[in-house]
Amino acid sequence: MRKRLAYLGPPGTYSEQAAMTYDPRAILLPYSSIPSVASAVESGDADEAIVPIENSLEGSVTFTLDLLIHDSSLLIRNEIVLPIHHNLLVEKGTKIDDIALVYSHPQALAQCRSFIGSKLPNTQITASLSTSAAVENVQRSTVPAAAIANHRSAEIYNMNILLEGIEDNQNNETRFTILGTSGQPQTGNDKTSLCFSFDYDAPGILLSVLQQFSNRGINLVKIESRPTRESLGRYIFLLDIEGHKSEDNMISALDEVKNQVSMIKIFGSYPRQVSSSV
Amino acid sequence: MRKRLAYLGPPGTYSEQAAMTYDPRAILLPYSSIPSVASAVESGDADEAIVPIENSLEGSVTFTLDLLIHDSSLLIRNEIVLPIHHNLLVEKGTKIDDIALVYSHPQALAQCRSFIGSKLPNTQITASLSTSAAVENVQRSTVPAAAIANHRSAEIYNMNILLEGIEDNQNNETRFTILGTSGQPQTGNDKTSLCFSFDYDAPGILLSVLQQFSNRGINLVKIESRPTRESLGRYIFLLDIEGHKSEDNMISALDEVKNQVSMIKIFGSYPRQVSSSV
Repeated sequence: MRKRLAYLGPPGTYSEQAAMTYDPRAILLPYSSIPSVASAVESGDADEAIVPIENSLEGSVTFTLDLLIHDSSLLIRNEIVLPIHHNLLVEKGTKIDDIALVYSHPQALAQCRSFIGSKLPNTQITASLSTSAAVENVQRSTVPAAAIANHRSAEIYNMNILLEGIEDNQNNETRFTILGTSGQPQTGNDKTSLCFSFDYDAPGILLSVLQQFSNRGINLVKIESRPTRESLGRYIFLLDIEGHKSEDNMISALDEVKNQVSMIKIFGSYPRQVSSSV
Repeated sequence: MRKRLAYLGPPGTYSEQAAMTYDPRAILLPYSSIPSVASAVESGDADEAIVPIENSLEGSVTFTLDLLIHDSSLLIRNEIVLPIHHNLLVEKGTKIDDIALVYSHPQALAQCRSFIGSKLPNTQITASLSTSAAVENVQRSTVPAAAIANHRSAEIYNMNILLEGIEDNQNNETRFTILGTSGQPQTGNDKTSLCFSFDYDAPGILLSVLQQFSNRGINLVKIESRPTRESLGRYIFLLDIEGHKSEDNMISALDEVKNQVSMIKIFGSYPRQVSSSV
């Protein structure tokens, strides 16, 4: 049976591209927000959800982190890293000198700031809700306009790609996380994601938790903090660590950690994917 | 001489309120973006800059963190914590049942989501560039509208406050950082902010850096990571630690840390302010 995979739509977004790369055979179901992508799996309307979690230039997608911490009991089953290449899309016949308006999602506009400044210095810049919506804005525009978007949306909307790879920084990648209702077995090259917090303010404890892992040879891949939403200066810490939660040294470390924290939530153990740009 | 204090305008924003609280005698200079607030001090147009750095619900203001890391050599001289209370502002005569449209900054709209759902279920919600711009949108609206904004903008724009304290979570505070060109002397209750990174991927080193501080009784207040912008999975770590960089144990810890990192930048030592909501 083909997998039903929920993603942050509409079609033509980088999320759709990540979904197609992750599972080319899946039935893709677009949703309008990150929480509704996750809800689709919780309600059984989809088998898995794919959501962006981290970009190499912008950092963590805090909406996804907060969803994992507070609002979802789904497990991370996989991850995939997508190189992000922006392109300048126009309607057939539009030349670069004609362009009076540039539309895109604010993040894509920010990532092409130098390009716009040097190649389109006199155009008006306008924010769109997504890179796909930007293409629709161009098609409805009464003056010659361009959208910053991916190849896929050029196909879907039948647009010309005037220039390719217009992003200012070539190290632009987004990591996506795949969420589901069940965990994954060990593969020998796994990662475990979790979060924890303390019910009192004792900064030394964080160090002590990190030591539980390092003492057992478990490497730290990523550390992040998010507010508890209870008081300024109180944090929930998120860790990505090497290994699977069913490995012996991990079981032992997690047992110790559980005695030190007031809350711990394991988001899952899943095969580690390495960056595709290297 | 009165201090010239640059802030993220326009007048009526929470940043202006923080600036007035920080220095009621200062000449307040509004700028349109966080980078331009900092540039005003670098160019000598202002003496100090006040910028938001962290909210108790939303987390770090990554724009400010990235400015400190990459784009500014200003020092942190102070911090101030402002409780955030949202209010429903209307033009005189507008009643709650008349309201067809609600304007505010997306963050303020998100922070009043439950209120809007229960008290204004059938109104259209529209994003504005700032809470001040929301009030201007209301004044230009052709249908009865409301803005979510602070007391100060009700004064400036001569609006009625229909309801006060409409935020969903009462633990809503924003911490602002004050930037200048010179450092601060020891006060006995100081905090030091810094960032560092490693030129190779060795997760154990982070732990070793944290131990340099903890071994000397220096408490960790906050840890955060931001992308290096060079490759996914490579981070710059930001620490807030207790103490002043000119204290003996801090000098000794920083000397050791400098041998372990490839880059270190000390944003400053400054008097520690405690949260005002407790």
